Amino acid sequence: MLYFIGLGLGDERDISLKGLDAVRSCSRVYLESYTSVLPGVDKKALEKLYGKEITIADREFVEEKAEEIIDGSDTDNVAFLVVGDPFGATTHTDLWMRARERHIPTETIHNASIMNAIGVCGLQLYRYGEAVSIALFTENWRPDSWYDKIKANMKLGLHTLCLLDIKVKEPSLEALARGKKVYEKPRFMTIPEAIEQLLEVESKRTEKVYGEDTFCVGLARVGGSDQLVASGTMRSLREYEFGGPLHSLVIPGEMHFLEEQFVRSFSVED
Amino acid sequence: MLYFIGLGLGDERDISLKGLDAVRSCSRVYLESYTSVLPGVDKKALEKLYGKEITIADREFVEEKAEEIIDGSDTDNVAFLVVGDPFGATTHTDLWMRARERHIPTETIHNASIMNAIGVCGLQLYRYGEAVSIALFTENWRPDSWYDKIKANMKLGLHTLCLLDIKVKEPSLEALARGKKVYEKPRFMTIPEAIEQLLEVESKRTEKVYGEDTFCVGLARVGGSDQLVASGTMRSLREYEFGGPLHSLVIPGEMHFLEEQFVRSFSVED
Repeated sequence: MLYFIGLGLGDERDISLKGLDAVRSCSRVYLESYTSVLPGVDKKALEKLYGKEITIADREFVEEKAEEIIDGSDTDNVAFLVVGDPFGATTHTDLWMRARERHIPTETIHNASIMNAIGVCGLQLYRYGEAVSIALFTENWRPDSWYDKIKANMKLGLHTLCLLDIKVKEPSLEALARGKKVYEKPRFMTIPEAIEQLLEVESKRTEKVYGEDTFCVGLARVGGSDQLVASGTMRSLREYEFGGPLHSLVIPGEMHFLEEQFVRSFSVED
Repeated sequence: MLYFIGLGLGDERDISLKGLDAVRSCSRVYLESYTSVLPGVDKKALEKLYGKEITIADREFVEEKAEEIIDGSDTDNVAFLVVGDPFGATTHTDLWMRARERHIPTETIHNASIMNAIGVCGLQLYRYGEAVSIALFTENWRPDSWYDKIKANMKLGLHTLCLLDIKVKEPSLEALARGKKVYEKPRFMTIPEAIEQLLEVESKRTEKVYGEDTFCVGLARVGGSDQLVASGTMRSLREYEFGGPLHSLVIPGEMHFLEEQFVRSFSVED
């Protein structure tokens, strides 16, 4: 059996009892390490809890060694651990498809991910439109296709979840130019950085989708013991100190009065 | 502390280790029983696992006795258990707001819910638009506001998750008319019933949002050990036997070829 096991959002104790049973039954355990991170967790803590050695599976590893991960999972149990829920990212579906083609039984053990835990800010999940990913701008690469998506959501009165960029194990371009493979240190976009970019694009597009006075909700470390939710205008949240990663931002659409009451209880203004 | 603890989607072993620690520390434990059900679970199994007695909290109970639930959670720990993730439904936010007004500390322990576990069908979560709720039609009550929402999603190329009606502890109108409070037996909308209603409304509205040939994905008992995913046209899925509740239906928008490959691997046709 090839298990896809979600670890949830906080630390090693966010795995489900079912997930723990499964991972303990496995002869090999891989931890996906590139589409997400579990800041509250380290490999040692997981290994201690599971009583198993863990192989870290970064992007290259999963792409190059997918067949190796799957090998033997017809007779033995193998676990592929993913922070959050397993089916948040395309690459896991690739692994799943390969297993299926080889007629290997698979089982998914779900867990919370930002896509549903965002409900903690008080905006109803079924009132969200398409989620957008905000990439960190570089000097020459400033993609803003999310602007039109936020606009479409706003037009329908829907909330927008903005997933903020995570750069883990990005090759250093400078080192690549010198023929070496060196990785940049991990970088996590903050809510103030995201708001900077949002406002920059609004000032360029001027379609009045949002502005400095737009009421937003910033969430840091959702599901962690030091989770922080703060609401206010983009102007206020741009100056707010949210602490360590991961950060997410919600731009509310039309709010029911109960939703409004709830999110405003996190206001940083008064 | 007032804990809001998600139980996930399958059975009693879908609670997280953190959730189990929390519930075991509580002097009172309530199980929300009206916005969702955990078909794989019964009260006895939960009580055995937790070593605690559980009070079932149906709609009336939570509405009438909210203050009673909260009372004492400033000095003792109290758990409010919710199938799926705690912040899927408005009524839990009401309880949370009341606690907050009384300055009672709260903590949320997240888990999987249909809103993210639906990713298991292979359509990327960030490509979903607004989710819709399909209510069981009665002779005189045939609400179809979801039609415009599906249309809006389709126009944007987005997938639509259709949440199918659950009727738990509905008062019997016949009995009410005789001055008695008797409850109907629980009813869960099936995928074929949902498709019937969808097609009925399309034939009335004739805006060609979808039709008998529209490719869909039906999911039954997501997160359970007997989870079933089946894809095909509405015509095919209308005839398909999905077994017991809960059922969900996804109407895909534009699919990336990897998404399409994944969902078509569940095809019930040929």
